[in-house]
Amino acid sequence: MQPKAITVREIYSRFSAKEDLTKLGEIYICGWVRTNRDSGSIGFIALNDGTCFKNLQLVYSNELSNHDEVSHLLTGTTIGAKGTIVMTPEMKQPFEFRVSFVEVLGTCDSDYPLQKKRHSFEYLREEAYLRPRTNTFNALFRLRSVLARGVHEFFQDRGFVYVHTPEITGNDAEGAGQVFSIATMDEKGKLNDTDFFGKRASLTVSGQLHVEAFAMAFRDVYTFGPTFRAERSNTTRHASEFWMIEPEIAFGDLEDDMNLMEDSIKYLIRYALEKCPDEMDFFNKMIAPGLFEKLNRVLETPFRRMEYTEGIKLLQDAVVSGHHFDNSDIFWGMDLQSEHERYLTEEVVKGPMFLINYPKEIKAFYMRENDDGKTVAACDCLVPGEGEIIGGSQREERYEILEKKMKELGNKEGLEWYLNLRKWGGCIHSGFGIGFDRLLMYITGIGNIRDTEPYPRTSSQLKY
Amino acid sequence: MQPKAITVREIYSRFSAKEDLTKLGEIYICGWVRTNRDSGSIGFIALNDGTCFKNLQLVYSNELSNHDEVSHLLTGTTIGAKGTIVMTPEMKQPFEFRVSFVEVLGTCDSDYPLQKKRHSFEYLREEAYLRPRTNTFNALFRLRSVLARGVHEFFQDRGFVYVHTPEITGNDAEGAGQVFSIATMDEKGKLNDTDFFGKRASLTVSGQLHVEAFAMAFRDVYTFGPTFRAERSNTTRHASEFWMIEPEIAFGDLEDDMNLMEDSIKYLIRYALEKCPDEMDFFNKMIAPGLFEKLNRVLETPFRRMEYTEGIKLLQDAVVSGHHFDNSDIFWGMDLQSEHERYLTEEVVKGPMFLINYPKEIKAFYMRENDDGKTVAACDCLVPGEGEIIGGSQREERYEILEKKMKELGNKEGLEWYLNLRKWGGCIHSGFGIGFDRLLMYITGIGNIRDTEPYPRTSSQLKY
Repeated sequence: MQPKAITVREIYSRFSAKEDLTKLGEIYICGWVRTNRDSGSIGFIALNDGTCFKNLQLVYSNELSNHDEVSHLLTGTTIGAKGTIVMTPEMKQPFEFRVSFVEVLGTCDSDYPLQKKRHSFEYLREEAYLRPRTNTFNALFRLRSVLARGVHEFFQDRGFVYVHTPEITGNDAEGAGQVFSIATMDEKGKLNDTDFFGKRASLTVSGQLHVEAFAMAFRDVYTFGPTFRAERSNTTRHASEFWMIEPEIAFGDLEDDMNLMEDSIKYLIRYALEKCPDEMDFFNKMIAPGLFEKLNRVLETPFRRMEYTEGIKLLQDAVVSGHHFDNSDIFWGMDLQSEHERYLTEEVVKGPMFLINYPKEIKAFYMRENDDGKTVAACDCLVPGEGEIIGGSQREERYEILEKKMKELGNKEGLEWYLNLRKWGGCIHSGFGIGFDRLLMYITGIGNIRDTEPYPRTSSQLKY
Repeated sequence: MQPKAITVREIYSRFSAKEDLTKLGEIYICGWVRTNRDSGSIGFIALNDGTCFKNLQLVYSNELSNHDEVSHLLTGTTIGAKGTIVMTPEMKQPFEFRVSFVEVLGTCDSDYPLQKKRHSFEYLREEAYLRPRTNTFNALFRLRSVLARGVHEFFQDRGFVYVHTPEITGNDAEGAGQVFSIATMDEKGKLNDTDFFGKRASLTVSGQLHVEAFAMAFRDVYTFGPTFRAERSNTTRHASEFWMIEPEIAFGDLEDDMNLMEDSIKYLIRYALEKCPDEMDFFNKMIAPGLFEKLNRVLETPFRRMEYTEGIKLLQDAVVSGHHFDNSDIFWGMDLQSEHERYLTEEVVKGPMFLINYPKEIKAFYMRENDDGKTVAACDCLVPGEGEIIGGSQREERYEILEKKMKELGNKEGLEWYLNLRKWGGCIHSGFGIGFDRLLMYITGIGNIRDTEPYPRTSSQLKY
């Protein structure tokens, strides 16, 4: 009779539920050899089967019929094993798996790039298709998966409708930033970007404009999907392809918007800590010491609101009192740099904050003009250790004002439909955008956006 | 004191929970006027606030201070209203909202394209940004949202890890089908597709190859994201951009794969029926009479397995007995047309089925060759009323066989990494792909894929 096949996740979850694992009897397990060491009479294999972060310790004796083969199993080899769980309360592992039979299901050459030694993130980036087999990336990509589910749970539990806004678009939300064109190729290899759709098509930089239309039908909506920027900036925070979360709320103003931002950030941090305790422990211990402290402070602190105008004044005061900024030319109307944002959130507020009501000249055309005629109802969410992590705004719902602004800026052809939303049953509404990959950086302490993405795409990088 | 703001969803859910709605006292509600009729002394507004499929019936009297304005409110206008719920057990609506105050929050011109009359789907497709305000598309896009969550719940509850496989790719899964190229534009407007990434880049047609690598780390994984085809076919089932669900299971063979397909389809149908009862009722009554019967039959029936070879024989028998096919030249080795698939599932099996073990020449290079040397371990899931809805296969895990096949087919440069997965800890594994938009067509009875997508993209169509 074949023994029951079981996963490492199931074993650990039965253990957590205080079940008697020895009662499982003979079981069958399969997975990949992480390490293998043999001392002659007894040998140990750390087996990972992909179903949880933890390994299972396999113990074999020299009485195995294929002991010689087993004792020489290389890191990376796929094996199946029969055996029983034995409790070892006095050891580091609370239990181990005593094997009676081991079979090789897939060999692994000795030129396998992931040998036992520690590899740099740069090295592993070159082996993107293999790196989820390492602790760091196994933890990271499982968290990415779980957190993506958390995004849907947060919004849908609150009645939000998820909208698959298009990747291919004929118009552009931000206007800023280089976009990728979409082209087809004729038989001679000549590229043409108007041939297929009959007009120029590009990859979306934001789903916001498209999702606003759905907010006028469903009230509360969100998009969550890939977004593209053809930026050549080679920084740790920029990628050409990344996922964005963009909620939009009808009948909501900037205050409602900020409350939603704060709730969503806190929810997602809590979700990560609760649903991926092993993975988060690993990040806290091995990747970013102090991570839990940082995240817990965000959870416990009400986010402070501060006017842009006040922020500028505080920065000017800081310069006067001798604080060093690389850019110390602070004036009302300027776009803040990361060093300025971090000063405000780290030194002044000492916690998460919203900076609100920015000069209209430095913000997007769709943001709602305030009564002062100089600022718009925009807000950036700033957090210690990072600076800006979310940007949002109340949208301009007044037809005439938006039309005037679009005319002034020019280049808004093809957006008549967007303007029409203000003519046919418009209302005040607001929204924001969170870069999902940057959020993962913040929650895990991983320092490079390339290490949060399964197959990162940046300028000159398209290996897989 | 301002009355409590409340949503229509909340009112109906309190009603379902048998709460006494009259105890809510004075409440405030806002949303959009669907219809407005006034008989002089009393008037009725059907209000939809986007939070649920159902409208709320607002009743106003000529004692309203702005009665003249209210009685002339046009379809599409955004309003806010104060009032109280009154139970009307003898009426069609079990309760109504007696208003004491109505304010206009956003006007709607009389040239609003969604007037009260019934519009054709073709007309509404031209107004894609407005159509979610109609019953059909409101129901459809809410279902799309809920079902997307269902996809994540199904897989993640079973321990699958969600992988954001890249949209921009340097290699291609299927080889078949035209792909979109990604290009950047220089200042003179000249397109270049190697400039940015240093090599040719295109939009993905499938995340399968990329997700297979993650199955070798996490065991059970899935992708769920946009996929692209530059096909010019102008059919009701083809779009240039659509969402695909692609699970991949390590240590699973074709049988495991089929079990997973059957479980996932049944789960998603049940999820739609349970989570969107009002919307599904609407589809069953107004869009596709007989829908519930069709879906319930799928839920109740174990999916039958049939060999391709047997399928061919049955089709040949059908031709002999006089059954008419447009293509009646049936031979072993042919690719089945939809009419053939539908004959098998509708006339022979009279229920959902898997057709398995296809000739290797008509299937993709990565499918596992069977011992007969002629067929591969592929399967298509066929359902009555539709034909194929899912395709899957066991993948070739043997290095030498896959390498030989890739060499024979040529043009597989850049896929060395995919081959390496068979060298470094490979194992038997399988997977499949479901087109999410086609699944929505099947579950709702909607006949055109363009009507399942928020902003459909097809050849020559890029209005928004």
